[in-house]
Amino acid sequence: MTAHSNLNIVPFVSVDHMMRLVLKVGIETFLTELALVIEEDFRRWEQFDKTPRVASHSKEGVIELMPTSDGTLYGFKYVNGHPKNMKEGRQTVTAFGVLSDVGNGYPTLLSEMTFLTALRTAAMSAVAAKHLARPNSKTMAIIGNGAQSEFQALAFKAIVGVTELRLYDIDPSATERCAGNLAGKGFTIKACSSSQEAVEGADIITTATADKQYATILSDNMVGPGVHINAVGGDCPGKTELHRDILLRSDIFVEYPPQTRIEGEIQQLASDYPVKELWEVIAGKCEGRQSERVITLFDSVGFAIEDFSALRYVRSKLEETGLYVELDLLADPDEPRDLYGMLLRCEAHLRVV
Amino acid sequence: MTAHSNLNIVPFVSVDHMMRLVLKVGIETFLTELALVIEEDFRRWEQFDKTPRVASHSKEGVIELMPTSDGTLYGFKYVNGHPKNMKEGRQTVTAFGVLSDVGNGYPTLLSEMTFLTALRTAAMSAVAAKHLARPNSKTMAIIGNGAQSEFQALAFKAIVGVTELRLYDIDPSATERCAGNLAGKGFTIKACSSSQEAVEGADIITTATADKQYATILSDNMVGPGVHINAVGGDCPGKTELHRDILLRSDIFVEYPPQTRIEGEIQQLASDYPVKELWEVIAGKCEGRQSERVITLFDSVGFAIEDFSALRYVRSKLEETGLYVELDLLADPDEPRDLYGMLLRCEAHLRVV
Repeated sequence: MTAHSNLNIVPFVSVDHMMRLVLKVGIETFLTELALVIEEDFRRWEQFDKTPRVASHSKEGVIELMPTSDGTLYGFKYVNGHPKNMKEGRQTVTAFGVLSDVGNGYPTLLSEMTFLTALRTAAMSAVAAKHLARPNSKTMAIIGNGAQSEFQALAFKAIVGVTELRLYDIDPSATERCAGNLAGKGFTIKACSSSQEAVEGADIITTATADKQYATILSDNMVGPGVHINAVGGDCPGKTELHRDILLRSDIFVEYPPQTRIEGEIQQLASDYPVKELWEVIAGKCEGRQSERVITLFDSVGFAIEDFSALRYVRSKLEETGLYVELDLLADPDEPRDLYGMLLRCEAHLRVV
Repeated sequence: MTAHSNLNIVPFVSVDHMMRLVLKVGIETFLTELALVIEEDFRRWEQFDKTPRVASHSKEGVIELMPTSDGTLYGFKYVNGHPKNMKEGRQTVTAFGVLSDVGNGYPTLLSEMTFLTALRTAAMSAVAAKHLARPNSKTMAIIGNGAQSEFQALAFKAIVGVTELRLYDIDPSATERCAGNLAGKGFTIKACSSSQEAVEGADIITTATADKQYATILSDNMVGPGVHINAVGGDCPGKTELHRDILLRSDIFVEYPPQTRIEGEIQQLASDYPVKELWEVIAGKCEGRQSERVITLFDSVGFAIEDFSALRYVRSKLEETGLYVELDLLADPDEPRDLYGMLLRCEAHLRVV
């Protein structure tokens, strides 16, 4: 055994370990700390390699690789999107990711990211609202009460101070499940029977519906002055949630314009329609909300840097929690030029054992 | 537990399991069977998505993602290249890969690929030589006796019938190590003191050197008529091994022209210089060797489809060998819309335990 004898090892955070990590840290603390890492990375946005995601499309769905790097660390996420999966008892979206050392190219973390993506999406939404919603926003409508909804609610509670939820889903059992899961978590919850009812009195409107082609979850008359809209569900070409007229009345903030123009709500607008970049607001280079009456819209599609932040945060928690296993992922012979010799030594060892 | 209760599991082949798999199957059988899968995939070349690799470059090296899909399966490889790693006791190149089901986007295999890449590169080289070298080629020169060399030798023995090796490396200890590792494997081995000496009487010349900028491992006068050249080492911009004049005298065969023109020996030639695609030879659409006297050159850089074939082959071996572990990589709740509920159930379970 040499000082380098563990170079072959990559820590792996399984789904079970991710759940234990979230429970150990506490989900609201987890979301709050993750939000701080996202803000930290958004403030140094210009340091990052920003590659568009690499997508492999098929009849049934898409598989994407989302890489990025800050010059010191490199991260990528593998994520699929298959709307028909749910009918077969599978997740529409699953994901995993890797964080590596740019200096030597060795992976330093492999992690499940189905949970982590839900957590980072919620933390990102809450970070945007913290910078864009009216101060003292307490009431949030959530339209679409699927897999994202509880994470969104908890992030907005922890980071923005939301305490009142108004829930609506076309499937009442989804609303019931969401309300049940959030019972006892410090919210006043109202189950609503229409989108119209849900948005009444809401400071913030979160739309997180799925599987709809050019749907109109919100129509223009439903959105009053001063509201912040957190549009989470529209995130690929052909999938939008908001009526175009709402976009025209809003100050629009996005993650990475070249990607959002293809995937976000603004795919409904001209390709040069003015939008603001959220990182500039967070970095103090650009004003967020300009008045009490402005409608602000975060047109969220999810960007690789958020996954990078999430992987970076998870890795920072490993030592103190021990919630990972060691994966023998990298062939690392004592003599790097002698890869084949490693096989011979393994053979000799097996013969002895 | 439901019929779907193992949907979260992805088989993982560690470095240790890969070595045991190779030893259990036998390395020559492994290379031979892998070569058949590569040939099978090359014959249906036109079915594949062919994306250029996605590279993240830094001062010290490169990290790449190499995806491809045949419409039924999707595969990608993560691979780094960091020449300075060897001085620090790390591998210059490490890799891992994933194979997924296109229909639902779920990964079905995660595997180490440092070993597997060496194996597939060797199998690919031997497949090319099987189609391009003179029949009854028995003698191979290997110039550059590093980590690739033994794998190349064994693949050429198993697939082409090579039994005589003539080894040369600028570092005599590398040649000594290679010859030692191959002792008793059925070769007659000659350690040579120059490239010139190594190529004397060789039917096939394999060049597998590393870390050289526009090196000239072979000069024009060293290559006689009828020889097949297997150029493995030149595989990125600025890294070549052969003198340009050799290229001009050869029939050149490549994997994927858009990639080879950037990374291969032919980066020295005009961007429209005629080359032949190896898959067309394997599929019987194009002639390989046209006469006894022609010099054939396989300008190998490594393409994503070969990694796909390798992952596909490894996956086919899992059931019979059991050489893998189950990785809890995918969050897969019984109710797909209830991701957060999975966390609550985990919490309740931990409280009971």
